[in-house]
Amino acid sequence: MPSVRPRAARSPNTPKRTAELLPLGATIGILGGGQLGRMLSLAASRLGFKTHIYCPDPASPAFEVTPHKTVAAYDDEAALAAFAAAVDVVTYEFENVPAHTAEFLAALKPLRPGAKALAVSQDRLVEKSFIAALGIPVAPHRAIHQAGDIAPALAELGGAGILKTTRLGYDGKGQRKVADRATAAAAFAELQPHPLVFEAIVPFVREISVIVARGVDGATAAFDPAENVHRNGILFTSTLPANISDATAEAAQRHAATITQALDYVGVLGVEFFVLADGNLIVNEIAPRVHNSGHWTEAVCITDQFEQHIRAIAGWPLGDPARLADVVMENLIGDEIGAIPAQLSAGIRPHAYGKTESRPGRKMGHLNRIKAPSGKV
Amino acid sequence: MPSVRPRAARSPNTPKRTAELLPLGATIGILGGGQLGRMLSLAASRLGFKTHIYCPDPASPAFEVTPHKTVAAYDDEAALAAFAAAVDVVTYEFENVPAHTAEFLAALKPLRPGAKALAVSQDRLVEKSFIAALGIPVAPHRAIHQAGDIAPALAELGGAGILKTTRLGYDGKGQRKVADRATAAAAFAELQPHPLVFEAIVPFVREISVIVARGVDGATAAFDPAENVHRNGILFTSTLPANISDATAEAAQRHAATITQALDYVGVLGVEFFVLADGNLIVNEIAPRVHNSGHWTEAVCITDQFEQHIRAIAGWPLGDPARLADVVMENLIGDEIGAIPAQLSAGIRPHAYGKTESRPGRKMGHLNRIKAPSGKV
Repeated sequence: MPSVRPRAARSPNTPKRTAELLPLGATIGILGGGQLGRMLSLAASRLGFKTHIYCPDPASPAFEVTPHKTVAAYDDEAALAAFAAAVDVVTYEFENVPAHTAEFLAALKPLRPGAKALAVSQDRLVEKSFIAALGIPVAPHRAIHQAGDIAPALAELGGAGILKTTRLGYDGKGQRKVADRATAAAAFAELQPHPLVFEAIVPFVREISVIVARGVDGATAAFDPAENVHRNGILFTSTLPANISDATAEAAQRHAATITQALDYVGVLGVEFFVLADGNLIVNEIAPRVHNSGHWTEAVCITDQFEQHIRAIAGWPLGDPARLADVVMENLIGDEIGAIPAQLSAGIRPHAYGKTESRPGRKMGHLNRIKAPSGKV
Repeated sequence: MPSVRPRAARSPNTPKRTAELLPLGATIGILGGGQLGRMLSLAASRLGFKTHIYCPDPASPAFEVTPHKTVAAYDDEAALAAFAAAVDVVTYEFENVPAHTAEFLAALKPLRPGAKALAVSQDRLVEKSFIAALGIPVAPHRAIHQAGDIAPALAELGGAGILKTTRLGYDGKGQRKVADRATAAAAFAELQPHPLVFEAIVPFVREISVIVARGVDGATAAFDPAENVHRNGILFTSTLPANISDATAEAAQRHAATITQALDYVGVLGVEFFVLADGNLIVNEIAPRVHNSGHWTEAVCITDQFEQHIRAIAGWPLGDPARLADVVMENLIGDEIGAIPAQLSAGIRPHAYGKTESRPGRKMGHLNRIKAPSGKV
């Protein structure tokens, strides 16, 4: 019998708005044609929606799961207008949607999550300030606008840390560990664009994440926290349950819900945390979208993160995030995709993203290794 | 804690053939564009395959989940040839694929399940003889070729029963209960085409079904038996676990696996049984495809019936059919589809088929009501 601790956090104090329910047969517009857009489309299809994928890359894997697509740049206003006319609501699979694209679409159709979530999550400095203002701890950090900012930041924050771009970083890209003024100066020269942010080293004992959803009506629901291990800056495994106390788990879910409320958020949000030795939490970063560390939900939850996101942006009641079994999600990077089907055995639920080309560091699929309640698997 | 009794039946005695594994990115061709074809396509996408749907109906719901489709009649040889050239393996969502269509395609690409499964399951008389020859009980029955066959059949089989077409019946269509020679004669005149089959009334206490899969290598795996309730001849609910003994469950799974072996079957097969008061089983009918009474598997099994079918026809190892929770699947017929999203509450996983028109008796979607192991839901 696994440790099953559904901790769905609802917020009964939020004033309810009457949500307009998107009807069956309506069309969900999705910006971005990668694996997250693909999995969102599959979930939308299960709910009886049509989907339309917008992506500049003609080889987008999400184009294989719907007949409706637009291949165009994100600043192509004619294409954006036609896309908006063809869909009933717009969402996205990546947080770096250009601000002008978001504004343009939001003027034509509901954009969920909204522009505020994009603005906050696209800039590490803005994001940290926003979260800190909610009373939720973030890593000590300093803005680095010019080379001269490095020395005082190092002096104030322990002499070593991580220098990161404020924008467009992901999967460990756009960041360097720095141990002294010389390595910091070199990293400052390399990392573009400026400004940068210098973050102190956080003495964490583990990393966790919470996938939380908020509906149009203001209700929230959080999945169980996952314990995450990274490898070369890329998520390697997510394990359920995380090796944390109930109090830490509940705090993480509460913080995640608080962030969605403050953003007036609609959809699924991923929040990554560092867990300190005393169980206290520090937010590492947020992602205004379905999240790699939530891929385990498709194998063992009554509602998975993709369906939950679609329900939320459709104005539907949120689904039940209860977890039915313990699970370890394992990313398949580059040639590791060969594990499907070569290494499939009992207890494994595979997912391949349909990418035609395997490249080093590219996320190609994942496996969910499930421990059934029977103990048989 | 639910009663979790995974009873995956393997057949270690079957000589193994080396299966050619269909590679990621290959294309699965699916005959039929209804909800079963749609759900097969969604499962194939999760495994990294492309899909191509072939259906004469331009409004087929499965056309919404892939960019690759053929709208043509099943006897259009040019269209069939182009379809075969575009795919790597062919499967189907319905057992009434015309024999000539099956032969034509099988000459060009692997057809899984094969022509034998179609030939047997398309004719109730052939099917019953085939199953009885395996030593598996079927309902007492007589072939009715002409009106004069009715009286002796009634006399021999208890004076009442069910008159059914031998071909093209489904969801209670093509059958009439008859209580005497007058009603039998009327039913004989109405039901077309002849011959018909007259079946004795079986004094069953419940109906169950087993969804079983067989791989190219001859391995088999059965899901837990579902207990089925019909309404107006259409499946209403499937409940797990079924209220039957372990011995009856194991016998049902064994019979199902035996049938797949005898058919040299590849793919998922549904077998419907009557359960007698003493626990003995009678096969009602078989379906050489994924089956409505297996829709619960998508909510609570490590591998669902759709993924299992795709794995089998791709030559991949079969997935794990273990069940993680108790569940009741409820069909949404006609306007009942309004339950999505209006009546969604905790513990429910919905599925809508994307059909644009709701008609009485039309299967529009289903709900899975899940009892989580925690007992919280």
